[in-house]
Amino acid sequence: MNIVDFRSDTVTCPDGGMRKAIFEASVGDSGYGDDPSINELESLAADIVGQEAAIFVPSGVMGNITALGSHCRRGEAVLVGDKSHIYRYEGGGLSAIAGLLPYALDDSSGLPSPESVLNSCPEVNVHFAQTSLLCLEVTHNDRGGLAQPLSDFKAVVEAGREKGLAIHLDGARVFNSAVAWGVDVKEYTSSVDSVQFCLSKGLGAPMGAMLCGSEEFISRARFERKRLGGELRQAGFMAAAGIYALKNNIPKLLEDHENGQVLADTLAQGGLIVEPVPQGTRRTNMVYVNLAEKGPSSSELAASCKPKGVLFNDMEPRRFRLVTHLGMDREEVIRGANCILREALTA
Amino acid sequence: MNIVDFRSDTVTCPDGGMRKAIFEASVGDSGYGDDPSINELESLAADIVGQEAAIFVPSGVMGNITALGSHCRRGEAVLVGDKSHIYRYEGGGLSAIAGLLPYALDDSSGLPSPESVLNSCPEVNVHFAQTSLLCLEVTHNDRGGLAQPLSDFKAVVEAGREKGLAIHLDGARVFNSAVAWGVDVKEYTSSVDSVQFCLSKGLGAPMGAMLCGSEEFISRARFERKRLGGELRQAGFMAAAGIYALKNNIPKLLEDHENGQVLADTLAQGGLIVEPVPQGTRRTNMVYVNLAEKGPSSSELAASCKPKGVLFNDMEPRRFRLVTHLGMDREEVIRGANCILREALTA
Amino acid sequence: MNIVDFRSDTVTCPDGGMRKAIFEASVGDSGYGDDPSINELESLAADIVGQEAAIFVPSGVMGNITALGSHCRRGEAVLVGDKSHIYRYEGGGLSAIAGLLPYALDDSSGLPSPESVLNSCPEVNVHFAQTSLLCLEVTHNDRGGLAQPLSDFKAVVEAGREKGLAIHLDGARVFNSAVAWGVDVKEYTSSVDSVQFCLSKGLGAPMGAMLCGSEEFISRARFERKRLGGELRQAGFMAAAGIYALKNNIPKLLEDHENGQVLADTLAQGGLIVEPVPQGTRRTNMVYVNLAEKGPSSSELAASCKPKGVLFNDMEPRRFRLVTHLGMDREEVIRGANCILREALTA
Amino acid sequence: MNIVDFRSDTVTCPDGGMRKAIFEASVGDSGYGDDPSINELESLAADIVGQEAAIFVPSGVMGNITALGSHCRRGEAVLVGDKSHIYRYEGGGLSAIAGLLPYALDDSSGLPSPESVLNSCPEVNVHFAQTSLLCLEVTHNDRGGLAQPLSDFKAVVEAGREKGLAIHLDGARVFNSAVAWGVDVKEYTSSVDSVQFCLSKGLGAPMGAMLCGSEEFISRARFERKRLGGELRQAGFMAAAGIYALKNNIPKLLEDHENGQVLADTLAQGGLIVEPVPQGTRRTNMVYVNLAEKGPSSSELAASCKPKGVLFNDMEPRRFRLVTHLGMDREEVIRGANCILREALTA
Repeated sequence: MNIVDFRSDTVTCPDGGMRKAIFEASVGDSGYGDDPSINELESLAADIVGQEAAIFVPSGVMGNITALGSHCRRGEAVLVGDKSHIYRYEGGGLSAIAGLLPYALDDSSGLPSPESVLNSCPEVNVHFAQTSLLCLEVTHNDRGGLAQPLSDFKAVVEAGREKGLAIHLDGARVFNSAVAWGVDVKEYTSSVDSVQFCLSKGLGAPMGAMLCGSEEFISRARFERKRLGGELRQAGFMAAAGIYALKNNIPKLLEDHENGQVLADTLAQGGLIVEPVPQGTRRTNMVYVNLAEKGPSSSELAASCKPKGVLFNDMEPRRFRLVTHLGMDREEVIRGANCILREALTA
Repeated sequence: MNIVDFRSDTVTCPDGGMRKAIFEASVGDSGYGDDPSINELESLAADIVGQEAAIFVPSGVMGNITALGSHCRRGEAVLVGDKSHIYRYEGGGLSAIAGLLPYALDDSSGLPSPESVLNSCPEVNVHFAQTSLLCLEVTHNDRGGLAQPLSDFKAVVEAGREKGLAIHLDGARVFNSAVAWGVDVKEYTSSVDSVQFCLSKGLGAPMGAMLCGSEEFISRARFERKRLGGELRQAGFMAAAGIYALKNNIPKLLEDHENGQVLADTLAQGGLIVEPVPQGTRRTNMVYVNLAEKGPSSSELAASCKPKGVLFNDMEPRRFRLVTHLGMDREEVIRGANCILREALTA
Repeated sequence: MNIVDFRSDTVTCPDGGMRKAIFEASVGDSGYGDDPSINELESLAADIVGQEAAIFVPSGVMGNITALGSHCRRGEAVLVGDKSHIYRYEGGGLSAIAGLLPYALDDSSGLPSPESVLNSCPEVNVHFAQTSLLCLEVTHNDRGGLAQPLSDFKAVVEAGREKGLAIHLDGARVFNSAVAWGVDVKEYTSSVDSVQFCLSKGLGAPMGAMLCGSEEFISRARFERKRLGGELRQAGFMAAAGIYALKNNIPKLLEDHENGQVLADTLAQGGLIVEPVPQGTRRTNMVYVNLAEKGPSSSELAASCKPKGVLFNDMEPRRFRLVTHLGMDREEVIRGANCILREALTA
Repeated sequence: MNIVDFRSDTVTCPDGGMRKAIFEASVGDSGYGDDPSINELESLAADIVGQEAAIFVPSGVMGNITALGSHCRRGEAVLVGDKSHIYRYEGGGLSAIAGLLPYALDDSSGLPSPESVLNSCPEVNVHFAQTSLLCLEVTHNDRGGLAQPLSDFKAVVEAGREKGLAIHLDGARVFNSAVAWGVDVKEYTSSVDSVQFCLSKGLGAPMGAMLCGSEEFISRARFERKRLGGELRQAGFMAAAGIYALKNNIPKLLEDHENGQVLADTLAQGGLIVEPVPQGTRRTNMVYVNLAEKGPSSSELAASCKPKGVLFNDMEPRRFRLVTHLGMDREEVIRGANCILREALTA
């Protein structure tokens, strides 16, 4: 049975071209700076996002916690979205590892408002953990994976600057936003102090993420990464896949987005409640569906679709997420949508 | 000029009786368990709150962070009120010292709702910091210092139990709530796993707080306290004041509450917008006032009252707090209220 | 029975003069900067040690951990003496609270050697926690409480400077060293970046310690102290005792030292093995005794002296410590010594 | 020029067989438990070391810090060798991430003595961070990489048990010790509570390490790993290399050891001071050389060999390390040795 796997864009497996790149990779001990593929990837990544330097890390989570530890001192506070990945989905490393207190801002639009940033930095007073960093997530996974208007992004960055905050962009899926708006990714990434983006989501590499920033920031990040256990040896195999992904797969995200729209339309026309795309924003590769009070719950629906070869994640009791990616074509998307409709509406 | 100091009930200075108790205190080195006053106070406190054991700590903040460190392992999450003292006013120690991630619940009524507790404990999944503790604050300083109905308190405790959470009560002002409702403080304190209450707020002692819980919990707390630097030597002087406070000053809180009501009434009748006491709750020793958009801001008003000998804290740009306590009588309360009215309305 | 308490100089109880100072203290809420006694004490302490500013903390342990957190970032390393208080006797706060890795230097002379400081700072390489702070302890409790030659102290400070380290002096008993050599305490304290000294050891105050350093350092320390729970309210009672101690009790340390010498001589003449005072160093208020392999252990000896009214601490199975202080006179010292001799040699 | 790279056994690059295994790997999203190669590797690793379960981590450093965080609570102390990797070479994560205080034991023989373990656990007293874990390193990198007698290993494990400590084995190179003595690796690994071994050192895989222990321990480790950023996606490529390494390369370590002996003999016969192999221990794949006071320093020697195509690490000013591994044959070893002799003795 051919599986249609809507669980995440992290499930993509390399195609033949990427496998070949892995097989033929030039490698060395990156602990000694000797891995040519890692060196090439770090240079390429910095260039693409418009920052001075970059460092390869095994995962997006490590990219984020490395950034937090490199920017801040323990005891400081960071502004995060209330449903952001860095706050809710990374095992509490923010506090447990970096010793930082999160102030959670409403991010229901996908971005905190500039006003919330301006109003959430407490005065200088020993009672209050002092804010030093603003974290943004583009696209925002839990808020629909929508491509926000660039102007909104710039406005919140501006608010952070006004309060003297450093700004870290969790850009795990920032290329999705850039592609959705047809702009250079630097529009998002060159104006922040650090950006993390994933190679292993829509870009399709097996693992790894890049953390990018100034030379001085990346020097500190190398210490954090070592301590966390993220310095690898012949990581060039995985870097080669990353280089391949950056050179070949960015434009393909557009296809994922188109598939996302087809998926949303099919489900909506079939009678399911698809979370809308607010005016001024654009859909990327995610579709969130809300279930009516009657009928199966998300987890029941996921369980009944699974034996039919259609996989997805139940995010909340009556809310589930579907993600399109490299690992599926248009026909599979439609087949998957029809299976979900059948199971949801005839149950 | 006789100062009317509405800034906090922490500003109270000992009266003659308490000073005498301090002067005559039996002391010893409490690091060796030799301070008779400390020993008496710890025993008395445990008894009053209906717990097995108690430990003297220099401040309420230390009582709270000691409790967090004794209950939880770094990397866990704790449920806290969004405006709670333990989350917002304690310098981020929650994360910086105990390594814990806060999940902030709406506490606008003064207590998180049972539903919010039931819905905020994530499933067992490596993405999510696992909740192990629920923190409550009674009375809740930033939410008006109101005495919540006991049934509401018990309902949220019950919700915490249902999720298998340990429960810590930040009872810095828990006696205010008990006195307001005319119930034994044990109604609040004996059903939780730990409770901290302050000797230096309404009870009028110069410093110190008590952390109370099971023998086993307090044993762990002694290690945490030492590490934080909270083990003192001849602390008996301060303990003697604490014993005096517990034996003499609890019933006097009622007078503070009556003064609070007089203060609220005077201000409201004079034309200021006093934050209301919702049905089913009772006022204690705090009055929060909101300023109209025209006229002086909180900080401007505080600045203009200060030279007239009336002090208070501006909590937000157009919101300020007044606290009644042992250090003022009825006449002073009214004098203070009139000064504020004058400055607020004629400015 | 009149107790002779050699356990520590922390056991001293205030005399009449100090009690009177406490009784009459001017106090206020030091959380608001309103406690005149605290303000006076902080100013006096900074002046005495030759630093810009000072902060009152409840204990020496808190003074030390506050200093560590204010100087360093988590993930850095600190050079500490192998038997230093800050490393061995403070519950691991160094690592648990400040997130610092200790590199332990041989401190058997009481001070690490300059060579050990020069050789213990690893190169800049991501494998190695980078050293940022050198901690010294004067006098060194576990190493005999000896007054080291000032030139040795200055040499190790110099070595720290050469490696670009900040220097924190755990001067819990630094006045003992200054008095023993007849020099101004500034000789030790004005050349370091921060110094902590205790009010509650030989100086005889009930509790508290002072952390002193630059204005900028003390500003950061106020945040650390708050987070740890060390900000007190009417702490002026205890500050008044501290002021009294600084104004009256420093010269009295000389008497403790003379009593220490009498104690050492009496025990040695009686046949016990007193740890010697190496050439070029001076005894202060401590006497360490080693027990022969036959005969009672330290803890057995302590247990047999206790019912005779003579108290001391067994530090190791066959090593114990005696401390002289304000709370005993010459006659008591000799009586205590004779009791120990009797129990040790006739057992 | 053909490089002879003595820097570390981490520099090995996969041969054709391993590259093929990587190319053909079955992969999936290991974040969802879907990667068949990861699952196979975890099962195989647990089986080989005689533990219930295993978890793949990107590096040995992460295996160690994950173990520390899973065994201990912040504020506890751990016994570590004074020159152990976990204490000296892992960026201070022990303290910065896990919040643990190291008590460093003399490990100059490669293992701490049982007596030192028995004597280094402080009594239950709030002054002292309480020991909960003993960490051992086999073979011990900084102490010559020698294979210790199994009886010595068992004796120190026994001492740890006597004190009630959990025991973690940093077995980055534990297969070298097992192969050197011709015993099943379980002799070392099945009696401890957790063991970490590296796939990317002598075993020749590109990256990764295995952390093994009880089911319950590994469950906790999965949370720690996520928080650190060690949960990967299609990690099966790297796991396939690890499986290949475990199935093919363990016996080849014997060849590395023989090369190590040839290397040591050649250098010694040529006139260099090779650190000896104490009686009762065996050489593995490391040779440490001490330089006479005259002549080039380690770093000078390394610099002069480098352009001749011979690489090694200067560990100390007059001490350097040579490591043999899969990436060199006998002829290269001898060529490398002769180059070093030439540069060292004619300089």
